[in-house]
Amino acid sequence: MSKHITGHTGLLCLLGSPVAHSVSPEMHNEACDQLGLDYSYLAFDVPEDKMPQAVEGLRTMGARGWNITMPGKNIMCRLADKVSPASEISGACNTIVNDNGVLTAYTTDGVGFMRAVAENGVDIIGKKMTLLGAGGAATAILVQAALDGVAEINVFNVRDNFFGRAEEIVAKLNERTSCKVTLHDFSDPEVLRASIADSAILVNGTSVGMAPKTENTIITDTTMFHKDLFVFDVIYNPQETRLLREAKEAGCKTGNGMYMLLYQGAASFKLWTGEDMPVEIIKEKYFSGK
Amino acid sequence: MSKHITGHTGLLCLLGSPVAHSVSPEMHNEACDQLGLDYSYLAFDVPEDKMPQAVEGLRTMGARGWNITMPGKNIMCRLADKVSPASEISGACNTIVNDNGVLTAYTTDGVGFMRAVAENGVDIIGKKMTLLGAGGAATAILVQAALDGVAEINVFNVRDNFFGRAEEIVAKLNERTSCKVTLHDFSDPEVLRASIADSAILVNGTSVGMAPKTENTIITDTTMFHKDLFVFDVIYNPQETRLLREAKEAGCKTGNGMYMLLYQGAASFKLWTGEDMPVEIIKEKYFSGK
Repeated sequence: MSKHITGHTGLLCLLGSPVAHSVSPEMHNEACDQLGLDYSYLAFDVPEDKMPQAVEGLRTMGARGWNITMPGKNIMCRLADKVSPASEISGACNTIVNDNGVLTAYTTDGVGFMRAVAENGVDIIGKKMTLLGAGGAATAILVQAALDGVAEINVFNVRDNFFGRAEEIVAKLNERTSCKVTLHDFSDPEVLRASIADSAILVNGTSVGMAPKTENTIITDTTMFHKDLFVFDVIYNPQETRLLREAKEAGCKTGNGMYMLLYQGAASFKLWTGEDMPVEIIKEKYFSGK
Repeated sequence: MSKHITGHTGLLCLLGSPVAHSVSPEMHNEACDQLGLDYSYLAFDVPEDKMPQAVEGLRTMGARGWNITMPGKNIMCRLADKVSPASEISGACNTIVNDNGVLTAYTTDGVGFMRAVAENGVDIIGKKMTLLGAGGAATAILVQAALDGVAEINVFNVRDNFFGRAEEIVAKLNERTSCKVTLHDFSDPEVLRASIADSAILVNGTSVGMAPKTENTIITDTTMFHKDLFVFDVIYNPQETRLLREAKEAGCKTGNGMYMLLYQGAASFKLWTGEDMPVEIIKEKYFSGK
């Protein structure tokens, strides 16, 4: 990616900590370059307690928008002037659009998931999902899937710090969408088995199985898999987790979260610029080595 | 200039209003590119009353530094944690260096002037200067010249809004430097004539003669010029003002302010990066068409 920066060049950026390793700058700068859009996308390492100052600065300087990664996703929602339905329900956002000083919060992580599933050739609209986990990634998936028309979602989580928040989000989704959402304690394997049995998709939204602990899997009983099940793991390091390997062995179609990052970026990019990110070029240049 | 931006790329920028036309982004990005320094220099249009928010944002986001153009040069001095001697005396700055959240204000406009004079092959250290004007550019020249060792400076200004401030600055310079500085009312031509008579340099620090009013000149009586006088005009549009043309006709060596902008930038660049800006390349690419 190469860019000629002038006094007219606009700013896009990523806020969070750490951020220096992120592929987002390269992804968005490449996309701007390909489309001839005059923005530079930089990354700024900002801790959660400094987000208010960063936001007022960016608003003042007329930045077109920014992404937020951990630990700023929740506080950023409260700093925005307007909040999208998905961000309001989840209490988190990963994207801010600055329209002449008015900041709107969006979350495109769930949008990225829905597109990643669709790009796998799988249609889950009107169908049933079993979702494992209730952290940030799982919540984004849950909310967008419910908003987009998945008919039923069973969420399984251990009774950790996220459980209470998950109960609130599930209640909101049942109230505001036509999706039937139920939160289950992860400790009962038979409830899980029954849910998976008539689900079109099983999603691992936890970090179980991520490198370096690749010997772990969230589904230890592989008899729960069935041939009509699409198994999706948000983990992409390794690209094939033990969960996906065993699901594939059981005859399931599988997909991983590698392109969720790309597609959430494409959705943010669309919000800022109105343009479609040239995802095939980005895949080739920045995701092929992963 | 082309740049590959990643999550590691640092931010430099220009604050002020308007800024979009500025050559500073191209100058600094080119210099970073030439030297392999991983910064992007952007311009942000920020009005004076919003400078505090912009500064706290940039501090929080870890920007390495920024330039300030009108109307922010005075307020920025008050927003910094530390102030260089030249900025303290003039009450203005055009450069902030951010050392891990500690902001130091510098003014490099006068440094740019001193280098521009030196690059003309003229040595004014230990000599006498006649300086016309007491606005921002003239003040920056006055302060740096006094600090750098010009022996005597006569400043001429009409009794406008700047006169009172100029009196204070002159008092400080007489107190803190070995330069003998005197402020004169511009209305007495014989005092001006006497000052020019034994000056090594005459500087027009006003906008008189700038396009489109190129028929104007600050020195209407050309008998004040003498062959040992170097006449410098901060104006560079046109490159040869009526003042410079008539001075040249009277046998004076002349110079204009075109490279003051370049050299103030080089001085800022040195403060941020510790490196010498490759000024010859910048001249060729961004100043040759002017």
